Order: sequence, then structure tokens, then C-alpha cells
Amino acid sequence: MVRRAVVIPTLVRMSTVPRSTAFLTDHYELTMLRAALRSGAAGRRAVFEVFTRSLPAGRRYGVVAGTGRLLAAIEDFRFGAAEIEHLTAYGVVDADTADWLASYRFRGDITGFAEGEPFLPDTPVLVVEGTFAECVLLETLVLSVLNHDSAIAAAGARMIAAAGERPCLEMGGRRTHEQAAVAAARAAYIVGFAATSNLEAARDYGVPSVGTSAHAFTLAHDSEAEAFAAQVAALGADTTLLVDTYDVHAGIANAVAAAGAGELGAIRLDSGDPVTVARAARAQLDELGAAATRIVVTGDLDEHAIARLAAAPVDSYGVGTRLVTGAGAPTAGFVYKLVEVDGHPVAKASIGKATRGGRKDVLRRLGPDGTAVADLVMSRPLADGSAPSPASVPSPVPAARGADRSLLVPLVRSGELVDGALVGAAGVARARAHHRSALESLPAGARDVAFGRPCLPVVFAGEGMRTSA
Amino acid sequence: MVRRAVVIPTLVRMSTVPRSTAFLTDHYELTMLRAALRSGAAGRRAVFEVFTRSLPAGRRYGVVAGTGRLLAAIEDFRFGAAEIEHLTAYGVVDADTADWLASYRFRGDITGFAEGEPFLPDTPVLVVEGTFAECVLLETLVLSVLNHDSAIAAAGARMIAAAGERPCLEMGGRRTHEQAAVAAARAAYIVGFAATSNLEAARDYGVPSVGTSAHAFTLAHDSEAEAFAAQVAALGADTTLLVDTYDVHAGIANAVAAAGAGELGAIRLDSGDPVTVARAARAQLDELGAAATRIVVTGDLDEHAIARLAAAPVDSYGVGTRLVTGAGAPTAGFVYKLVEVDGHPVAKASIGKATRGGRKDVLRRLGPDGTAVADLVMSRPLADGSAPSPASVPSPVPAARGADRSLLVPLVRSGELVDGALVGAAGVARARAHHRSALESLPAGARDVAFGRPCLPVVFAGEGMRTSA
Repeated sequence: MVRRAVVIPTLVRMSTVPRSTAFLTDHYELTMLRAALRSGAAGRRAVFEVFTRSLPAGRRYGVVAGTGRLLAAIEDFRFGAAEIEHLTAYGVVDADTADWLASYRFRGDITGFAEGEPFLPDTPVLVVEGTFAECVLLETLVLSVLNHDSAIAAAGARMIAAAGERPCLEMGGRRTHEQAAVAAARAAYIVGFAATSNLEAARDYGVPSVGTSAHAFTLAHDSEAEAFAAQVAALGADTTLLVDTYDVHAGIANAVAAAGAGELGAIRLDSGDPVTVARAARAQLDELGAAATRIVVTGDLDEHAIARLAAAPVDSYGVGTRLVTGAGAPTAGFVYKLVEVDGHPVAKASIGKATRGGRKDVLRRLGPDGTAVADLVMSRPLADGSAPSPASVPSPVPAARGADRSLLVPLVRSGELVDGALVGAAGVARARAHHRSALESLPAGARDVAFGRPCLPVVFAGEGMRTSA
Repeated sequence: MVRRAVVIPTLVRMSTVPRSTAFLTDHYELTMLRAALRSGAAGRRAVFEVFTRSLPAGRRYGVVAGTGRLLAAIEDFRFGAAEIEHLTAYGVVDADTADWLASYRFRGDITGFAEGEPFLPDTPVLVVEGTFAECVLLETLVLSVLNHDSAIAAAGARMIAAAGERPCLEMGGRRTHEQAAVAAARAAYIVGFAATSNLEAARDYGVPSVGTSAHAFTLAHDSEAEAFAAQVAALGADTTLLVDTYDVHAGIANAVAAAGAGELGAIRLDSGDPVTVARAARAQLDELGAAATRIVVTGDLDEHAIARLAAAPVDSYGVGTRLVTGAGAPTAGFVYKLVEVDGHPVAKASIGKATRGGRKDVLRRLGPDGTAVADLVMSRPLADGSAPSPASVPSPVPAARGADRSLLVPLVRSGELVDGALVGAAGVARARAHHRSALESLPAGARDVAFGRPCLPVVFAGEGMRTSA
């Protein structure tokens, strides 16, 4: 039935010419490089950490996402002739800087939370180490990818929690930038969405894609009955028929007539109060003998709307706008901060935006039943051995009974990916599995849809208990 | 001083392989195509309109943006071998559909609001005409581009209004998807931002790029004084020094010392209460003889924060997160609806989501002083001449005294751009000029930063006065 198409267009024009990712960054990365090459700071050993100062109000945890996309983008962060020509022509860089850029590639180390990992504020989720010059150039790219993808993942995780066992389908591509749409579908899949409408996400990341028809399809035919017959003829009776173009009651009758009561796969409801409409639809389907026909609800759903539908006869949820816009929090709030230079902690002291110097480790401490009780942030021992060791973590954090889980794992060593399966479809599959597994150790309230406090305290070695807010 | 770099990397790996834009769409576009090819609906003449049902709460107007990007993406919306192979391998399309796709390109007509045009709800801002099949395929791409870019433009326009004569700089790339960042910088420039931090936007769209340094640059040196000296040595005394890494007062003293009181271009303030900090900074700079040194404020600014700074001694604003996330409205709410099939109006009747059938024209009616008084939406005369003409527009809309301005202009004819200058940097320059000019005819309150009602009523011929809400 599936046969390869034999007619290939002779001319396929492409809008996206081959390009480095190096211009997906801010002008100031290049001027800093220029000045640092001149001052000598460029060659200093630097450690940058990525963290958020807080979660969006009411959220219980965040989810790290985008890591695989980021690692691929960093591999391709090179300055080719076109980039260097632009930078020199506009006077952004001088000749020495241009020469340096021409042979640039990141040769440092990156560790980070596994993609899909739940996180709390103030804990470093990515650590980038190398020369100041090679690390500072990555700031914008790192933040763009992680801020976007993690925002979608965190919102999506709440929708999945609200949906329970019912599948959620990502359908929001049309409500966000066309490339952000691909990343959003990817992030949603990592946190448990069953499928996406987005074809590029299917091709690039192995996310299952789904879709049947829109209202326009029905309107393009002389009647709803004709449209449904056409869809069933092309896609089979197990398709999903959109029944609310005109009148839902008549639409359901037409759908069952077109596909057969025992055959119709599903109906989709996209308007009206979903609880009311779904109940009426279920009753009508059952009455028509279409008890096996499923009900898909779409239209401005978010985690709260999904939670309200828990007792309604709905089989799956299509989520769009609210997912791809982060359900009110469209960016994750990550910052990229220099914390160590040549082995010495550094930190800015800006009012309200102070940072903690020194490279850190993060452990998730598990209680006796395997449930996490805190995330512990510890300074790495410095050259003089002065930093506190894990043993000095103060009460009231329970001592470790099982193994604490170290959350920062190696991603890049000397500029090379530690594992090719971190990127592409393999990386997505791994992140999805990791997310599911990591959620199991969070406290019971973590997946509550109601807004509340972060689900775990973050404890800084030497500072005593501190609950992130 | 500027010399071309001669060292070109021998291997520049690219993450973005040449690609069609055809997969930046939803699965269901393809299944609809498949079913419509089989039913015959594929060949019907279709008219799709893009409009919003409402503006974000409190907004006075929207701004159409993304048109140039969209037109370029539509030119490249072709199904090559890789796309067709995926679609057939996954059973999304059958062999007949694959054959049809192989020779597909859009050959219809597109009219729309000029890029940069202010718009009100319920007025079509883009009209796509052709066969049902060729038009329905573009739905997702059209909406993704316009929903994203117009959301940023509308938010940015409010910031520009709040800033008055002071320049606004776009610096939000790190808070949004790395490609959305480029589009956001482009949209911000169209509505009047002076420059961006984003290098790709500079290269692709001719947006001026700016930037100097981050806190990390200061931290990478042994002292702030050394960092400032390094920056001045590399970038000149007319640079912008970031003075709040440690203590703002000491920072300003160091900055003036490094660059010279009569030479220092600007200081940047990124933390603390900006009104208080800017006043103290201005007083200190003046006292140190740096009266010509400008003050740039950054850090979580939006239109309200900018308005509160109107009386503070600030010279320019750097705007990030709130701009690229649409200042609370990250998507513009555009939908793409089939309104006419083979010359007959069609409309869905879904609860709360009904549409108006029939292809429409939109006129901006200007009052005697050249200020707009309403947007008029008129059905185009159909074959039987039954649609109302502009003359039938009811009171209380004043009759036209000057020329009504027709807002829908030709963009694509028979699949070809009507003007190559609609895309790329030329399109951006034109949109920026058009936006500035079009704003002048809006009512005085349109640019108020305070939330309020849409600034113009939308009047439907034959329906009497109606104020959009």
C-alpha cells in the first residue's frame, strides 16, 4: 500500500541555506571576545553555570529540556567565511579576533542535568567549562535553547499530570514560531505527550505525528455527510471525524452514518463547554451503538481545563496554544553565569541579582522509601580543599540512606559528545524515558495541578535548610 | 582598520541542512489533501482569510508582522524527495497524493495588510486564494509566522510608544527559541526598535546590531578597573560600560576613570530600582564631568516599566524577556478560515467560534483631519451582485471625506511575488516605514500605554456599528 513516490520535483528551492549556528547569538559575545583577547582574559579557565532564580509562580518543579538540541547546535557553532565577513565588514571584530574565530570550535567540557530531569531553582542544571573565550561565546545559544524548550516541557508536564492515563496530543505549532513549533513538539514528547501534529518533529526527532482534518475540509464539501464520506474513503473508518462545524448532534449522527457505528475511530470536539459537549456526545454515540468510538477534545485546553475534564467521558486531549506558550510562563528564566575563573570563585553582587560563586555539584537526596527529600548543592572542593564536603550538609536534611543521585552528568568532554545518543531521535527517546523515571522519585504533591510551592527544598552546603520560592 | 579575515576554517559543519519549509506544518494538512484529492474537493476554488477574534486584553491595536518571512517561506514550501519519502513511509499520504505533492508549488493569489500595518479584530489581514488543495496546505505555516511575529510587533509597539523619543534596543534572544529570536528582532525593528543584539537578524534583515559586554567580562578580570580598561582599549572610549557587577557607585567611578570623563559613551544599569539607580548615576556622572555620558537601562523592562522611567534620566532602554514573550500575549490569535468555495460563502457555526462567510475587503476610513474613524469590512460583490457596496455602510460611521485607504494589498499573483522588495532586508525597511506612517492616522489614544479598548471600531457593512472587544 505504501509505495515510494517516483516523481521528484526538478527544482526544490530551499529557504534555509546551509548555515552555522554561530550567529544565533548576541553581538556582545563577539565584542567581549575581542576585548578579552586583547587583555588576556580570553585564555583564563572559566566555569559558567546555568540556573534559574525562581520557578514560575505556583509551579512545583521545572523540567530541563533542549539539551540534545543544544549539544547539536554547539557542534555546529563555527564561524565560516560568511560569518567572519559580516563581523569584519560591520566592525564587530578586529582582524585578530577574526583569525581566532576562524579556527574556533568549543573544546571544553559540559556537564548537566540529564534531559527530562525535574529541577528546582538555584541549582546549576548545566555547567560549561573551558577558556573564558570559548565558553562566553555560547551564552546566548545555551540560554535560547534551554529557556524555550524547558518552558514548554514544564508546562507540558503539568498537562500530562492532569490528564492521568489519557493521552495528550501536541497541536500548537500554529501558535508559535515555525521552528519553535518543532522544538515545542519535541519537548512535549519528552514529558509524556503521545504524539504531535508537527511533521518536522516527526522527521527530526521520531515523535509520532497524527492528524485528520479541520473545519475547512468539511466546508469544502457540499455537505458534512459528503465530507465525512470522503474522509472515511481516504483514511478509513478508524479515522477521527471533526463533528462541530455546524451542529454537533447532527455531526455525530453524520459521522456514525459515514463510518459505521462499530467502526468509527473517534470524533473530535473543538468548541463549546467541553464537559457538557463531551457528555452529550458520549451519550449519543452510545445510543447509536458507537460505544467504542473515542472522543478527542481540543480547543484552548491547559492543565486546569484538562483537570476539570477528568470526570468527563473524554479519551484524549489535543493541546495547542497554552502548551507552546508555556501555560503563562513562555521562558524558563535560566541565566548563564560565570562562577569560577582560574580556579577561584567569582560572583556578581548586583542588587537583587547576586550570584553564588564557585563550581557546584548537585545531589538529589532520596529518603528511605526512595522519595526525594531535597536537592543538595555543594561547592566542589577547591585547590586548597576548603569547600565543604557532602558530609557537612546540615540537618534538617536527612542523611542519605540509599545512594544520593548525582544530577550533573557528563555531556561533552574536550569538545566531543560523550555519547552520540544524546542528540537526535535517540536523545529524545532517552530523555522521555528519563523523565518518566525521574518523576517517580518526586514527592507525592509534585504532580498536583493546583499551584503551590516547589516540591523539594534546595539545600546549600553550609547554609542550612532553604526552601526555594 | 577593518580587514577581511584570511583564515577560513577548512571544515564548518552545519546543523541546518538545506530543507524545504514544507514540513513546518501539521500532519492533518496532508491527510486533508489526500481525502480532498479523492473526493474532488481539492480542485475547488477556495478563499481563506486570516483574522483574530479579539486582541489581547487591554490592547488598543495589533500590528501585522511576519509577512516578508511568510512570503519567502511560501516560495520554499515544496515537497522534495526527503519529504515525500517520509510521508509515504509513514503512510501519511498515498501514492496519488505523493505524485501531486512532487509537483506542488503555490500558484494562487495572496493579498494582505502591508507588513507593519495596525489591525483590529475580525478584519481579514491576509487572504489566500487558489484551489482548496494548494491553500489548505499553507494553513499552519501562515499561522505560525504571523502569530509569532505579530505578537512581538504588537508588544514592541507599546514599548516604543512608552519610550517616546528614547531609543529601544532589542536584547531578548536568549529568552526565546534561537530562531524565534531572529524573527523577534526583526519584528521589533519594524515597530521602531533602534537595534538588536541578535547577529542573525543583522545579517538577514539589515537590523543594526549592538552590544558591548556582560557581567562575565568584568568577573573574568582581576578587577572592574582592569575590565573597563580592557574594554576601552578594544572598543574605544565611546563604548558602554556595565557598571553594576559589584557596586554601582564605585563602578561609575571606575568607568569614568577608564574612559575619561569627556569620552565615556555610556553606562549600562541592569539591576536595582531603575528610577532610583538612574537618578543617582546621572548625578554622579555629572559631578564627575561626564555630562555627555549616556545611561542605558536594561533588566525586565516592559512598556509599563518604561513609562515609569519617562521622567528618569535614562537615554535608552534595552528590552528582553517581555518583548520576545509578547508582554503577556505571546501569540497573536490569528486563525485561518475557509470563507468561500467556488464563489459561494461558507462559514462554520461552532459555538463561540462561528465565522463570517464570504471574501471581504477592508477599508480604513479617515475623518476630515486624516485620523482614522473606523475600519470597514465589506463583502466583495458575488457573482449575483448581492453583496453590499461600500456606499451602504450605515451611520454612525462618517462618510468618507478623504480617500478611504484599502488595507488589503496584493502580495502574490499566480504564485509569484508581486514585488521582490516585500522580502528580506528590503521588506523589513519598507515595513518599518509603513508602520511609522500608518500609526500617524490612528486616533490619539491608540498609543496610550494604559490598557483600554481597541482604538477603532470595526464596522461590518449591513450590520451597523460594532466596536470590537
